[in-house]
Amino acid sequence: MKIYGDFESGNCYKVRLVASILGIEHEWIHTDILAGDTKTSEFLKLNPNGKIPLLVLDDGHCLSESNAILNYLAAGSELLPSDSFLLALTQQWQFFEQYSHEPYIAVARFINSYLGLPEERKEEYESKQEGGHKALVAMEKQLTQSPFLVGESLTVADISLYAYTHVAEEGGFELSRYPAIQNWLNRISALPNYVGMT
Amino acid sequence: MKIYGDFESGNCYKVRLVASILGIEHEWIHTDILAGDTKTSEFLKLNPNGKIPLLVLDDGHCLSESNAILNYLAAGSELLPSDSFLLALTQQWQFFEQYSHEPYIAVARFINSYLGLPEERKEEYESKQEGGHKALVAMEKQLTQSPFLVGESLTVADISLYAYTHVAEEGGFELSRYPAIQNWLNRISALPNYVGMT
Repeated sequence: MKIYGDFESGNCYKVRLVASILGIEHEWIHTDILAGDTKTSEFLKLNPNGKIPLLVLDDGHCLSESNAILNYLAAGSELLPSDSFLLALTQQWQFFEQYSHEPYIAVARFINSYLGLPEERKEEYESKQEGGHKALVAMEKQLTQSPFLVGESLTVADISLYAYTHVAEEGGFELSRYPAIQNWLNRISALPNYVGMT
Repeated sequence: MKIYGDFESGNCYKVRLVASILGIEHEWIHTDILAGDTKTSEFLKLNPNGKIPLLVLDDGHCLSESNAILNYLAAGSELLPSDSFLLALTQQWQFFEQYSHEPYIAVARFINSYLGLPEERKEEYESKQEGGHKALVAMEKQLTQSPFLVGESLTVADISLYAYTHVAEEGGFELSRYPAIQNWLNRISALPNYVGMT
């Protein structure tokens, strides 16, 4: 299988981290959004939505959306609970990630860390802080109750939320306010086969 | 089981529609966001995130995020493909819905239809149009190739995207530009046990 992705993108990193933890062999095809790699006619044939990460199976089938790729790769592994309610909770956290976490924390990081916080986007950057902290508070609350987001062991939900949380400070979110999150980050980076973002 | 929801919310409607199609008995607890029903201490005990829809099982376990609830309710039914790749595609469309569709189409509808397009939110409303049409173009492309989003038969992905698409005109998105979407909407509203939004 081929995975099209960018090392700096948290959404792409999720896929790389799960593939590494599960020992899934793949060809990584470096795809630079800012250089226009996702807008070529060749790429748009694979994903008309023009987004990475993108998984391309050996039979040519394509799958987009980072969390859908994660769940596909993790099928049958210990990262996906077999209990139907626990499985639903992993998805609850993944949808929370895409709706209530990523649009604040990843976007603030992008404006600050990639674009260098230009004057004309400062207001937008500031507007992301409240929502980002709200997401971190929700995670902190859960992680004071259980070592991982869905109970006692690592699931895809942890990987989904680890990706942008562990670099949240690049978006201006001080993690020292969240001790349970910090412990959880350390628990994940100590996993066998862990790989860093860059 | 109990479902906390609001009849006007597309996210809540998804859950009601799946419950109706699958004949799942439940108690619907009307929850009015604008009246503050999701901010009471009683509700926040059930869902600290303060959002609806919320599913509360008979044993007291709670599940939030509309698409996670849908997938939980649909487990073992014909609405969730048993093939692992097709299952991944249903999730691909559901994550697309939450990230690339709802934040444009549902928000534009809210500003226009609930708030009456006040002057101070007109710019935000206008800014939602391009992204909303981009999402509709992606759906149209798929629906010219297959009668439902993931092939020949109805899945949870269709219900997830039906909810806000069928009222997209309330957000200023003319559906006459999308004939394949219109046919798909008609196919869904003709289903046995279909219920309308209000």
